[in-house]
Parts: sequence; structure tokens; C-alpha cells
Amino acid sequence: MKAGIEAGEVSNASRNRVSRGVSVVDFILRIVACLGTLGSAIAMGTSRQTLPFSTRFIRFRALYKDLPTLTFFVIANSVVCGYLALSLPLSIFHIIKSAAKNSRIILLIFDTVMMALLTAAASAASGIVNLAHNGNSITNWFAVCQQFNNFCQRISGSLIGSFVGVVVFMVLIIIASVAISRR
Amino acid sequence: MKAGIEAGEVSNASRNRVSRGVSVVDFILRIVACLGTLGSAIAMGTSRQTLPFSTRFIRFRALYKDLPTLTFFVIANSVVCGYLALSLPLSIFHIIKSAAKNSRIILLIFDTVMMALLTAAASAASGIVNLAHNGNSITNWFAVCQQFNNFCQRISGSLIGSFVGVVVFMVLIIIASVAISRR
Repeated sequence: MKAGIEAGEVSNASRNRVSRGVSVVDFILRIVACLGTLGSAIAMGTSRQTLPFSTRFIRFRALYKDLPTLTFFVIANSVVCGYLALSLPLSIFHIIKSAAKNSRIILLIFDTVMMALLTAAASAASGIVNLAHNGNSITNWFAVCQQFNNFCQRISGSLIGSFVGVVVFMVLIIIASVAISRR
Repeated sequence: MKAGIEAGEVSNASRNRVSRGVSVVDFILRIVACLGTLGSAIAMGTSRQTLPFSTRFIRFRALYKDLPTLTFFVIANSVVCGYLALSLPLSIFHIIKSAAKNSRIILLIFDTVMMALLTAAASAASGIVNLAHNGNSITNWFAVCQQFNNFCQRISGSLIGSFVGVVVFMVLIIIASVAISRR
């Protein structure tokens, strides 16, 4: 490993410049994904709608906590956003020291795990949101969006940031593997 | 790249032996994941239950096609299984020629995409299966598993192979990045 780093340090300048460029792209993508997942978590977490009528015992109110899948979505997006924020210093380290290899592998492993978490949360939430919009006649699940229109629009929009995060993670893994192979 | 392959070919024998061991593990894991996703697709695709009573117009019958998310699950598992079967020759090539680097990167890129697809399908289906089991009192979605008991047990079981596939893909990506870094 030591020999590998030294060999990297004495390699030609153009290769180092490309590696630095890749690291800068990595840094920018992490910020984009962090903002996307943060936006998703906030948009989903703060969406609520109370219908203007009620019975004696029930107020008709929609909240993300009503559906466990949406709760998971908020938690997973918060976790991924926190991870991305914590990974930024390591990303800066890669810009400064573009010959680093082991730290890139560690980051790639965590990226893979976080990508799985975020994909799971985003797609499970999409399945539920689709059900809320369209319902399902065979299982008698009604389209609750007919009542909770604003709530549904809000939670549909909040999926976007999360899927942006998934795509960014895929790009991050691919450019990290290319950067590792160039060492 | 040519120089890289040659440098790999002249590297010491112990490193090559480890690389070959990693390639064999890669090959075995691909077979495991292929069988897991194939089993999931078949178990979900063949599950059906018809209740022993009917009205004049409706026969009560549950089928995976009734829910779009479960259809997506079957298609995604079939696609991933096909991809894994097609990737086996390349995996054998890596066992024979353990110094290959570019083909490993290509495989890693496709693995990342397929992992995202499989994770999305598995988690979206899990969300729907959970809803079928427990229902949701606030949105008035009933637990259809109370009627379609056998159907629900079958589709719950079919998720296992898919999640095994997700874990295998995570391991595949990690060992591929380690193998690339050793070149």
C-alpha cells in the first residue's frame, strides 16, 4: 500500500489532474445528493392536511406518521443526508491527496450500503404513494388522494429529491471504481 | 491499460492466487443470487388463490397481476436473474485471467444498476405485502391477507430470495472494488 501511494505520487501530472477533477465532481455530487435527501425528508416530514369536517370522535387528518413506509422514508433520507454530510471532509481529503486509495474503498463500501438504504426507502414510498393516488379496486384499497389532495401532492413531490440521491449514488460508485482503478 | 495488464501478469504469484480466489467467490455468489431471484420470480409469478365462494359477477381470486408493484417485482427479478446468468461467462473469464481490469469495471457498473433495480423491486413489494398483512386503519386499507391467507404466505416467502440477491450484489460490488484496487 505504501509503495502504491509513493508510485502514485511520482506518477505524471496529467493523471493527477484528472484524479483531482474526479474528486471535485465527487464532492459536488455529494452536496447535491445531501440537499436532495434533506429536501425530501423535510418535505415529507412537514406535510400534513386536516379536512375541514369531522365527526364527534374522529378528525380527518393525514400525516406521514400514519403510514409506516413514509416514516421509514423520512428516517432513511435523514440518515443518508447525515452520512453524506459526514463524508464531505473525506471527499475534500481526496481532492487534496488524489493518490489515496484505501479511504476511497472505504467510502465506496459505505456508499453502496447507503445507496441500498435510499433506494429501498424511495421505492417503497413510491409504491405507497402510487396506491394513495390510484387505489386498487381488487383489494378494495381506496384512493385516499381524492380527499387528501394537498397532502398527496406534497408527498409525491418529496420523492424527487430521493430519486436524485439514488442516481447520484450510482454515479458516485462508478466514478469511485474508475478512480481506484487508475491508481 | 496494456501496460497495466502486463504489469499485472508479471506481479507475484501470491497476489494472483488471492485474485483468483476472489473471482471464484464472485462466480459462486452470482449463481446464488441468480437462483435466489429466479426462485422469487417463480414463487411470486405462480402464486394464486381463489376463494371457495363467489357472487354472480365476481369470483374472489388473488393473483400477482392484481397489484402493479408485484408485477414489477416479477419483471425486475426475471431481468436481474437473466443479467446474472449472462454475467457468468465474464466471471469465468476473470477466474482464468485474474489481471483483467476494464472488464471488472464494466461488470461493477452493471452490478450497481442491477442492485438498484432489485432493491427497488424488493422493497416496494415488501411495502405492499406488509400492507396486505396488516392493513392501515387510518386510510381504510383492509388487511386482505385475512381472506387470501395462502396467497399472502406465498408472496411473503418469495421476498426472501430477492433480498438475498440484494445482499449478494452489495458483496459483489465491494469485492470487485477491492479486486480492482489490487491491480
